[in-house]
Amino acid sequence: MTERPRWLTDQEQRAWQAYRRMFLLLNAQLSRDLQQHTGLSDPDYDVLSTLGASAGHRRRVSELADRMLWSRSRLSHHLARMERRGLVLREECETDGRGAVVVLTGEGLRTIEAAAPLHVESVRRHFMDLLTPEQIEAFAGVGETVVARLTGAEHEAEPGTEASTAPAAGPHHRPGTSPTPH
Amino acid sequence: MTERPRWLTDQEQRAWQAYRRMFLLLNAQLSRDLQQHTGLSDPDYDVLSTLGASAGHRRRVSELADRMLWSRSRLSHHLARMERRGLVLREECETDGRGAVVVLTGEGLRTIEAAAPLHVESVRRHFMDLLTPEQIEAFAGVGETVVARLTGAEHEAEPGTEASTAPAAGPHHRPGTSPTPH
Repeated sequence: MTERPRWLTDQEQRAWQAYRRMFLLLNAQLSRDLQQHTGLSDPDYDVLSTLGASAGHRRRVSELADRMLWSRSRLSHHLARMERRGLVLREECETDGRGAVVVLTGEGLRTIEAAAPLHVESVRRHFMDLLTPEQIEAFAGVGETVVARLTGAEHEAEPGTEASTAPAAGPHHRPGTSPTPH
Repeated sequence: MTERPRWLTDQEQRAWQAYRRMFLLLNAQLSRDLQQHTGLSDPDYDVLSTLGASAGHRRRVSELADRMLWSRSRLSHHLARMERRGLVLREECETDGRGAVVVLTGEGLRTIEAAAPLHVESVRRHFMDLLTPEQIEAFAGVGETVVARLTGAEHEAEPGTEASTAPAAGPHHRPGTSPTPH
């Protein structure tokens, strides 16, 4: 640590406070919308949209856990509840010793296909549609810079888990494509 | 809901994914730094820095809860643990019927004074020092736009709680001023 703290400038303080308020309020609002409109929790949506976007609609549990920054045990408990609701299935992976795989069911796929447009509307209403293209571009640049540093410097994920490049839960959709998250 | 989902454009999708990854990874890193460098949890720091910045180093418990988007009961349990550690005191407010007040102790003040510079260094290292002044300005504008909409539209806080303007936990410091959070 330096001896003299390098306090934030007024501009930096404004930015930091805005960020702290934004993510607290925005995440709460999006969670509330998601629950009300679809009955899904944030981690439900996170798991379903990630599987929907994955090859064969399947992922290793350990990969999912790394990506969500959840412990494997916490995620396993959550997946057990989702399995009882018919949204996913868990399989032991036969091809190697690297543990369980989770697969989207037909019901899980229908659920995320129905939920995704509602979630995108919520993201638009509370975030994206409030911003100019220039703001969106600048914001993306900030996020990518910070993420690149954190994933490069911290080695959060095991090699090969794609945690540094894979998108988090969210609307993974492009205009003109099918509503299936991919 | 519209009949045709307005999927995100490529640029919007980039921004959204960057945001989701950033807050997940950045919050985790800052929490880890805070715990390792100061022994404080996020809500510990949030409470201490808010009280440090408040008139008389005191706040209503209900105001603090609104600001953190915590239930009053969850916050009360947390404050009880902080009280046992000597960081805060809870008092019944005599002047009106609006419930308990929480006050920073001398030990709480010393704790946040020691923690704040370490936390600011962490915020600088993982966020602020990676960005240009133009990026910081644009980022602040995005945050303020989103927060204004959410607080205006949602009425999260009771009137008079300042939830729409008060800073969240974080380094509330200006260059050249004392390290006391204010």
